[in-house]
Amino acid sequence: MNVNIGRKRSHFRTVAFDLKKNRVLLIEQRLLPHQFKIVATRDYRETAQAITDMVVRGAGAIGATAAYGLAQGARAFTGRNLEKFHAHLEKVYQRLKAARPTAVDPVNAMDQLRRQVASGLSVTECQTLACDAAEAFANEDVAHCREIGEQGASLITDGMRVLTHCNAGWLAFVDIGSATAPLYTAQSAGRKFHVFCSETRPRSQGATLTAWELAQQGVSHQVIADNAAGHLMQRGEVDLVIVGSDRTLGRTGEVANKIGTYTRAVLAKKHNIPFYVAIPLSTIDWNLKSGLDIPIEERHEEEVLGAWGTAQSGKRTYVRVANPGSGARNPGFDVTPADLITGIITPAGIFKPKKLWLNRMRLGFASES
Amino acid sequence: MNVNIGRKRSHFRTVAFDLKKNRVLLIEQRLLPHQFKIVATRDYRETAQAITDMVVRGAGAIGATAAYGLAQGARAFTGRNLEKFHAHLEKVYQRLKAARPTAVDPVNAMDQLRRQVASGLSVTECQTLACDAAEAFANEDVAHCREIGEQGASLITDGMRVLTHCNAGWLAFVDIGSATAPLYTAQSAGRKFHVFCSETRPRSQGATLTAWELAQQGVSHQVIADNAAGHLMQRGEVDLVIVGSDRTLGRTGEVANKIGTYTRAVLAKKHNIPFYVAIPLSTIDWNLKSGLDIPIEERHEEEVLGAWGTAQSGKRTYVRVANPGSGARNPGFDVTPADLITGIITPAGIFKPKKLWLNRMRLGFASES
Repeated sequence: MNVNIGRKRSHFRTVAFDLKKNRVLLIEQRLLPHQFKIVATRDYRETAQAITDMVVRGAGAIGATAAYGLAQGARAFTGRNLEKFHAHLEKVYQRLKAARPTAVDPVNAMDQLRRQVASGLSVTECQTLACDAAEAFANEDVAHCREIGEQGASLITDGMRVLTHCNAGWLAFVDIGSATAPLYTAQSAGRKFHVFCSETRPRSQGATLTAWELAQQGVSHQVIADNAAGHLMQRGEVDLVIVGSDRTLGRTGEVANKIGTYTRAVLAKKHNIPFYVAIPLSTIDWNLKSGLDIPIEERHEEEVLGAWGTAQSGKRTYVRVANPGSGARNPGFDVTPADLITGIITPAGIFKPKKLWLNRMRLGFASES
Repeated sequence: MNVNIGRKRSHFRTVAFDLKKNRVLLIEQRLLPHQFKIVATRDYRETAQAITDMVVRGAGAIGATAAYGLAQGARAFTGRNLEKFHAHLEKVYQRLKAARPTAVDPVNAMDQLRRQVASGLSVTECQTLACDAAEAFANEDVAHCREIGEQGASLITDGMRVLTHCNAGWLAFVDIGSATAPLYTAQSAGRKFHVFCSETRPRSQGATLTAWELAQQGVSHQVIADNAAGHLMQRGEVDLVIVGSDRTLGRTGEVANKIGTYTRAVLAKKHNIPFYVAIPLSTIDWNLKSGLDIPIEERHEEEVLGAWGTAQSGKRTYVRVANPGSGARNPGFDVTPADLITGIITPAGIFKPKKLWLNRMRLGFASES
């Protein structure tokens, strides 16, 4: 997307590849919104480390990073022996896979790339195929997000006030994003609307990443405390809610997403406000039979007990907010049941959550099995 | 309440009076929980400034502070002319009243004191009456909170997990508190339970003040992000919710309280979890006919866009969390309708919110009119 840096306005993808220097280019997301910096990893090990360290985060974005990292590793091979090349590629694959062991997107992306490379008859051909496949994966991610935008844009009408939660924007994907895609598409169509970004404690991705993205795109927006969503709905100041998802159950329509999503769904239902979830097809889990089977990650106490930000000196600083002697509970995600969700926006159309299973062929289930 | 300072355990009230030195003693709440400090104001002007600067906060606490401040001002008068004394007292009254112009408790407290002083036949007698009246007001606040504790303690059973929001603890009153009173009383009765403190963004009174109080009293507790309440309720980990109130409408049973209270009430109803509001009688507004008539204070954007805490250096620090180019909405309070409230715990008993009006005589309405 277009990013303002100083007086310049440039187009950036969250993840890209520098063919000439064989480097993966990443927006350093941990510094946002206080500093915009592009990181260029010099080899696949650095790329894997960037995934581990959350320089890059978000389902689509880490998938593309792993794909580029595998291509980067393939191109760094200097011999001509095809067998040795494949052994090397396997090593690169395993290193990148281990970077975020619980994530499924890097594995899917790299498997797709390996299938392409398998047909190469020489090391050089394999290297070219790897590059093309990585580029294709990234472009596919962009295309899917663009389709989510096309499918969802009609929901956004002039003058609407939209509530979002966390960041399912273009920073979480290669470009455009999932929850934000309908907003950006509606904006391109000339529609004017206002977005409330829930700050999304404890990690504040709404206040930092989503607010930054919307500011870059020139979308009217305000940050609100997570506590304020209910009040704004009660006073009729929210017309629509759109969020992303970390995992959506194809069999039940349940949606796992950032902690606080369930609360917004309950509030939206209470006030008859439409509640939509925007997802790429890779987010659908066709296996699990109940949301109770989704493991809820319990994260570090320190996230809840304090906050990261920029001090007056300009230095990135962690401050302890809570009473020093107290501990915290910190579930990272929650699960929203199907009956609270108005619709799931996918690249293949908008579906009632309980109709995902019925439409599983259109939604890519066949290709999974 | 009992406060641990270093190795010493001492009993403190939030507000007290040093007769010998004619000083009002206040716990400096802005430094909590990172530092415990008692401030001694040297004259009524300093006392008024402490109210303005929120050294002391909370309905009962600022009421008592104003009463003590008026007594302090009265005692500083050195002449013997009764007329001049009353003129001086009026000046002190106006200064203290102006300290927090929207608050009603300081005015009520000082009016009660002035009625006592009116019967004095000499300056010395008036000064003694002022002191006695201020002390009586503070003791009455403590007695009311203690009665709230007695009324509500039976709701807290062994093993219960209680959710609170914001701080309606002893720091907001002279001692014991409103929402926390039933907890402290149940603890004294030997019951074991666990409290989840919602951090209460944007000012984090739950993470700072309530967590600190509970730690001092040895009550088992954890801080949670405001986003986590819904998830914990959904998984059956919350048995009861107790909050305080800034204003409760006697005619409708609606409750105005810290932003986020309404959200917790909606969630509690959804999960059939009892939701109680604990209040002293002074919190009841017998005039307003609709919660929509309660003005909702829109506070500084900076509260939402960043956080105050202690940096590693030990220094109190504000960090900017949100995107620097973005603004915020920051409503300070919300209004919870009667149908979401299981009961209102008062010093005179627990009432269904819509039964307050029917019981207005028992609840002190007669003495108001």
